[in-house]
Amino acid sequence: MNINNKDLKSNKKIIVLGGDGFCGWPTSLHLSNLGHEVVIIDNLSRRNIDNELEAESLTPIQPMGTRLRAWEEITEKKIGFYNIDIAENYDDVLQVIQDVQPDVIVHFAEQRSAPYSMKTPKHKRYTVNNNINATHNVLCAIVESGLDIHLVHLGTMGVYGYGTAGMKIPEGYLDVEVQTEAGDWVGQQILYPTNPGSVYHMTKSQDQLLFQYYNKNDNVRITDLHQGIVWGTNTRETKLDERLINRFDYDGDYGTVLNRFLMQAAVGHPITVHGTGGQTRAFIHIQDTVRCVQLAIENPPTREEKVMIFNQMTETHRVNNLAKRVSELADAEIAYVSNPRKEAAENDLHVKNDLFLSKGLEPITLDEGLLQEVTNIAKKYVDRVDYSKIPAKSTWTKEQKPGTIDQTTKNIATGKGV
Amino acid sequence: MNINNKDLKSNKKIIVLGGDGFCGWPTSLHLSNLGHEVVIIDNLSRRNIDNELEAESLTPIQPMGTRLRAWEEITEKKIGFYNIDIAENYDDVLQVIQDVQPDVIVHFAEQRSAPYSMKTPKHKRYTVNNNINATHNVLCAIVESGLDIHLVHLGTMGVYGYGTAGMKIPEGYLDVEVQTEAGDWVGQQILYPTNPGSVYHMTKSQDQLLFQYYNKNDNVRITDLHQGIVWGTNTRETKLDERLINRFDYDGDYGTVLNRFLMQAAVGHPITVHGTGGQTRAFIHIQDTVRCVQLAIENPPTREEKVMIFNQMTETHRVNNLAKRVSELADAEIAYVSNPRKEAAENDLHVKNDLFLSKGLEPITLDEGLLQEVTNIAKKYVDRVDYSKIPAKSTWTKEQKPGTIDQTTKNIATGKGV
Ligand SMILES: NC(=O)c1ccc[n+]([C@@H]2O[C@H](COP(=O)([O-])OP(=O)(O)OC[C@H]3O[C@@H](n4cnc5c(N)ncnc54)[C@H](O)[C@@H]3O)[C@@H](O)[C@H]2O)c1
Ligand SMILES: NC(=O)c1ccc[n+]([C@@H]2O[C@H](COP(=O)([O-])OP(=O)(O)OC[C@H]3O[C@@H](n4cnc5c(N)ncnc54)[C@H](O)[C@@H]3O)[C@@H](O)[C@H]2O)c1
Repeated sequence: MNINNKDLKSNKKIIVLGGDGFCGWPTSLHLSNLGHEVVIIDNLSRRNIDNELEAESLTPIQPMGTRLRAWEEITEKKIGFYNIDIAENYDDVLQVIQDVQPDVIVHFAEQRSAPYSMKTPKHKRYTVNNNINATHNVLCAIVESGLDIHLVHLGTMGVYGYGTAGMKIPEGYLDVEVQTEAGDWVGQQILYPTNPGSVYHMTKSQDQLLFQYYNKNDNVRITDLHQGIVWGTNTRETKLDERLINRFDYDGDYGTVLNRFLMQAAVGHPITVHGTGGQTRAFIHIQDTVRCVQLAIENPPTREEKVMIFNQMTETHRVNNLAKRVSELADAEIAYVSNPRKEAAENDLHVKNDLFLSKGLEPITLDEGLLQEVTNIAKKYVDRVDYSKIPAKSTWTKEQKPGTIDQTTKNIATGKGV
Repeated sequence: MNINNKDLKSNKKIIVLGGDGFCGWPTSLHLSNLGHEVVIIDNLSRRNIDNELEAESLTPIQPMGTRLRAWEEITEKKIGFYNIDIAENYDDVLQVIQDVQPDVIVHFAEQRSAPYSMKTPKHKRYTVNNNINATHNVLCAIVESGLDIHLVHLGTMGVYGYGTAGMKIPEGYLDVEVQTEAGDWVGQQILYPTNPGSVYHMTKSQDQLLFQYYNKNDNVRITDLHQGIVWGTNTRETKLDERLINRFDYDGDYGTVLNRFLMQAAVGHPITVHGTGGQTRAFIHIQDTVRCVQLAIENPPTREEKVMIFNQMTETHRVNNLAKRVSELADAEIAYVSNPRKEAAENDLHVKNDLFLSKGLEPITLDEGLLQEVTNIAKKYVDRVDYSKIPAKSTWTKEQKPGTIDQTTKNIATGKGV
């Protein structure tokens, strides 16, 4: 069975790093379904972190073996799998690259939770070590293989930081004017100066420098996707069979904001807004994530071009507005708690996403049906919920007290004044 | 004996990371001599790399134990020493910090050779892993210790990249104008957009993001010294006794340009100029390095201030001009060989160093006497020279052929045309 391959331009060999994860799994299925030859590398560290945090995916995700057998049963397509830590086992990564001879490597394999990256020094150090070495090993292996591989990496909107007054956030590069010794102002294009909000986001800023360098020195073709917060859980392919179901994180560390709100409302937990909820964030539905990766693969840069950077998001929302919307949809309460992050209480965010639109993306935006779908999933698996895992407990500094109900910010957020 | 403590403003506890190295050793002696309490942490990796490369310091540096005993004998001052890999053994670093309770940590402990960082994937990976984890571990440990420690880090002029047309390189930050959605141009100050020239230089750009983040999130007080190429070998303190002698690298990987020229001329080897020698570089004498670190320690930022960045250099020179000068001084030949680096053949470089000048630095610049001193050291230890280690053999890409004599560039460099 091939549910849809009209988009396929040409059959490619693709290695998906981190293909067991929330974005990587549905992307692997989507690419396999399009007719590409897909090989997953993942060290299952995300499942091990579930064990560490004693918090499981809301949805009952199956072991990789079961997942891949189900996919083959349904579609007659094989996806390869290697359990390799790409940050630690360089030689194994290189070996797989030499064996598979991929046209494309899609790189999702990093520790991706900001709260987890801030928990303790151990977690900060793990995140830096894992993410930087993972990305650097991949780049080294691509160069050593001598193959002309297109690397598609998942970055984050969070590298931009927030609050650049009155400016629309461009795609990766910024046009600036600098003053010469003679006093003239001349135009230059620079990598957007990053202002990351957590150790996790910082590693993605550091990744950018790795990409810039390997592109300059070795002409590696790279696309860096600065992704917004992903919401939703299933895609066309993961819906085909219960055994293909995608991960759904709802805990305080890995759960991301919109999915958390929908899940909280569905299971009868108050919707936890951090601070006043005045932060504006960028969002994208998981179905668009897989579509964007496809578009990035189909539109590679040449070896002469610099790193191609796309903003992978479809809309921005103020967190408090999202909370209100979900609260109305599901008739749920909102709880205003102290913000565990260190960030401005309020910010605007205007983001360009012209590149994906120009490549044919038709954005999926917040819609009752899709919101309802997430709620239904949460209701279906309500028995799997551990309520004690819902509050966010990791704070950005030792001084912050997590999760305390905050009457002042509640009054501000609900318009009752201080 | 206390050869000079007139500069001492107050007695501090200082940990010197990388205190066995070329800059770290004389700095440790200088600070100890000023009356500060000095503790060195070093894993002796630089000496181990000597073993790996089968290339030794031109000068017969003594083991740490001998060095420290000699220092105590001469000055009655004790310097502590711990053999710890700061990139690998976080808990030990934290323990020393908790025991010593330092006011200042000076951080020299990184793999610092650009050619070494480009040799093979193994060397690239070692450099990234060692440098990023070393710096990150120090930052984590400072935060975890809860102490208000001033971190002084050695960065490099090389992060700036070269060739920003007509602009004087500022100290760390750049004033730019960016355009708002409304179309106005507004001023902003950003971290200078880096354009590193090797994997080693790239790690220093990544370090900058670590500093920016830990300063923002945890108010760590940080001074980052963007240092030029250090030349010379001895300082006031290392001259006191043969056993205190400083490292002198002359090999193709660790030897830096001016010291290499002086040594080559002294031992009767042609002066090896890469390409046309048209690159302009920034320089500083080792005696000024130790003085600058002292000034940085005496002028710490407050906890509210952002990372303080100084350009630690005193002059710039075009490499070919240096070669000619040394050639005249020592009546030595120049050999033009293919450039192992990937860089522009020619560049200008104008650098601000107002900050150190304003703090009282009286720059030591190229002077016959000092050049002669280096030459004398090279002559004294000529028996220790392994001539086969002089040529640069590491190249920036697999395609480049190291060390071939290049008649065309020679003609350009010597004004004979192409
Ligand atoms: N989920 C989001 O909202 C979101 C938003 C923006 C960007 N991103 C980025 O997209 C990528 C994927 O995110 P996700 O939500 O799917 O995360 P995830 O944690 O669900 O998936 C990451 C996968 O990578 C694997 N992995 C991590 N380190 C590895 C290593 N060293 N070797 C091998 N495998 C390793 C994990 O086991 C996991 O399966 C990440 O890079 C993330 O930063 C995600
Ligand atoms: N020498 C120069 O011309 C120059 C120029 C600009 C900047 N710098 C910077 O100044 C600093 C010192 O340079 P140097 O010339 O003295 O180098 P060096 O190699 O002589 O000294 C570095 C010292 O750090 C130690 N070290 C490295 N990694 C370590 C780790 N993980 N744990 C513990 N110790 C470790 C080494 O053993 C060595 O003794 C470096 O950061 C370098 O980048 C040097």
